[in-house]
Amino acid sequence: MSSLLLQILTERLFAAIPMARAMGVEVVAWDGRALLLGAPLAPNHNDKGTGFAGSLATLATLAGWALATLLAEKLAGPCQVAIFESELRYLRPVTGDFTARCTVPDEVACERLSTTLRARGRGRVALTVEVLQGDEVKVNFRGRYAVWKADQRQAED
Amino acid sequence: MSSLLLQILTERLFAAIPMARAMGVEVVAWDGRALLLGAPLAPNHNDKGTGFAGSLATLATLAGWALATLLAEKLAGPCQVAIFESELRYLRPVTGDFTARCTVPDEVACERLSTTLRARGRGRVALTVEVLQGDEVKVNFRGRYAVWKADQRQAED
Repeated sequence: MSSLLLQILTERLFAAIPMARAMGVEVVAWDGRALLLGAPLAPNHNDKGTGFAGSLATLATLAGWALATLLAEKLAGPCQVAIFESELRYLRPVTGDFTARCTVPDEVACERLSTTLRARGRGRVALTVEVLQGDEVKVNFRGRYAVWKADQRQAED
Repeated sequence: MSSLLLQILTERLFAAIPMARAMGVEVVAWDGRALLLGAPLAPNHNDKGTGFAGSLATLATLAGWALATLLAEKLAGPCQVAIFESELRYLRPVTGDFTARCTVPDEVACERLSTTLRARGRGRVALTVEVLQGDEVKVNFRGRYAVWKADQRQAED
């Protein structure tokens, strides 16, 4: 994707979520399969000078949310997305700028989401995200997201 | 605790973690048993105008980290604390200012932490945190934290 389109995606994120701007988040890459968000260490350090767990969790949560939104919109037009559960494993300290990479799930999961969005106007999708420093995985994240078409009320179940 | 001491704890948090300031976090209460952190909705909203999951996760993670630090320092003097895993359940949207409440674990867990800190200079503690809007629980968080005495290197295991 061109740098202009990545900038537009970043601005869309900033308009929706002020903390994304405060963290210095940017959309680094999106090729229709994998989404990469980046953030600098400087505003996101902790008391030890390494990556603050809250910022790492936030970047992972955002990457999953953004990918679920892009995927759902492709499958069913304008959609809303909200996380309802997540698990994180912090493997090693982050000592520099970091990224979060989320990949479109397999065809079975996409087809299931597409089917339930068409039939019921809502669905769910599970996504994994890796928080990386360079090529090294620092945090593993798994999140489950509720998706509903923009003309539906949020699922209550 | 007096408002002056709560302000000193808040400033300690801000000095350690810039994102705590960006989120408008404050230490609301600490009585030696329960710690309450607060944050305003305004800088922490999402695309739907409700509490941003990243901010909710961050406040919960911070509350556990701060309580683990206060507890460990009481048991064994200056300590460092780092989270190594967490689970979150987002139950309902947050539509106003919110708090995160973390309570000192039971005596068995405190005694186990105290013993391993004295014997090995490090230990682990599991903490639960509730993110609340008023009295309503909005997010359940469970985190596991590594603790080590300030004169030790971080545990590698």
